[in-house]
Amino acid sequence: MNKKGNSRTKLIQAASRLFQLQGYHGTGLNQITKESGAPKGSLYYYFPNGKEQLAIEAVHLTAAKVTDRIERGLEKQDDPVEAIQHLIKDLADQAVKDGETSGVPVAAVALETTHASEPIRQACQAAYEQFQHAFAKKLKVNGYPEKRAEELGILINSMIEGAFLVSFTTKSKNPLRLVAEQIPVLLK
Amino acid sequence: MNKKGNSRTKLIQAASRLFQLQGYHGTGLNQITKESGAPKGSLYYYFPNGKEQLAIEAVHLTAAKVTDRIERGLEKQDDPVEAIQHLIKDLADQAVKDGETSGVPVAAVALETTHASEPIRQACQAAYEQFQHAFAKKLKVNGYPEKRAEELGILINSMIEGAFLVSFTTKSKNPLRLVAEQIPVLLK
Repeated sequence: MNKKGNSRTKLIQAASRLFQLQGYHGTGLNQITKESGAPKGSLYYYFPNGKEQLAIEAVHLTAAKVTDRIERGLEKQDDPVEAIQHLIKDLADQAVKDGETSGVPVAAVALETTHASEPIRQACQAAYEQFQHAFAKKLKVNGYPEKRAEELGILINSMIEGAFLVSFTTKSKNPLRLVAEQIPVLLK
Repeated sequence: MNKKGNSRTKLIQAASRLFQLQGYHGTGLNQITKESGAPKGSLYYYFPNGKEQLAIEAVHLTAAKVTDRIERGLEKQDDPVEAIQHLIKDLADQAVKDGETSGVPVAAVALETTHASEPIRQACQAAYEQFQHAFAKKLKVNGYPEKRAEELGILINSMIEGAFLVSFTTKSKNPLRLVAEQIPVLLK
């Protein structure tokens, strides 16, 4: 990667991390530039539309990373019940142990900007659809009918999002643990 | 209520509404004072510790309102499955129709401030515990054993939080509708 491309990537990575940790409005462009290590002025060079454009790229990056993590997690076991339960238990550790340093992916930006920026809302919607699809794909491969797999993907993602939020806020693994226990019933 | 008490309440109400809609960091103290209709200077008179103190009161107010709504909703039907399903269907309408003007209760503040302010995090935790307790209470009254009722309260609240977040962001009732459909299986 050349140096210019590298600065652009660094800015998106820093924005993704900071938005997740302290929200969209709580994160200033100066802080993003500083923490990215990119040269001053590079932010408006690469993102002439400023913070909104950077937020869209940051959500895309977070979405790709989280989707990859879900997909790799689900590949570890053939059985979808075991695979999904194992993934949720990993998330429980993350929500409580690393919560303070990593936050909850996508959610803060989604909540703060849904009414304020349609392009950011669309990026957040695409992120949730990618997560849903990763679960649905695992179920389809294991013989679940297409429509049922897609509905279960939406449901499983929603349950995880909510339990992650509550686990993170209450510093308790219980919400995610209870969702994991529910998976066999759900996939019966 | 005297005029002074009234200004304090107005400030908390405006803060609660604005934090929910645009997040903690996205809401300035001047905007809160302006939208509350309280006199200039009254914010620091009633909240000498500033925004953090106001946010704690705002989360308490939101928590009380939402808990009351859950409790009143669950009283409408004796059968807990029907009562909870009915409540979730109401929430689905709210998430999609009123989402742009009302936001998701507590979540934005929880996500933005959990790592930055322990007193605000505790207020958000208390809010989620109140919501969980309202569901658990309905189940205990209907003969569910105490421990099972409390676990189901945590699970149902988590599922609703996540599905509300995703419904709100994707402008689709599907996530909440799928959670509602899952309630009979969950409470079997």
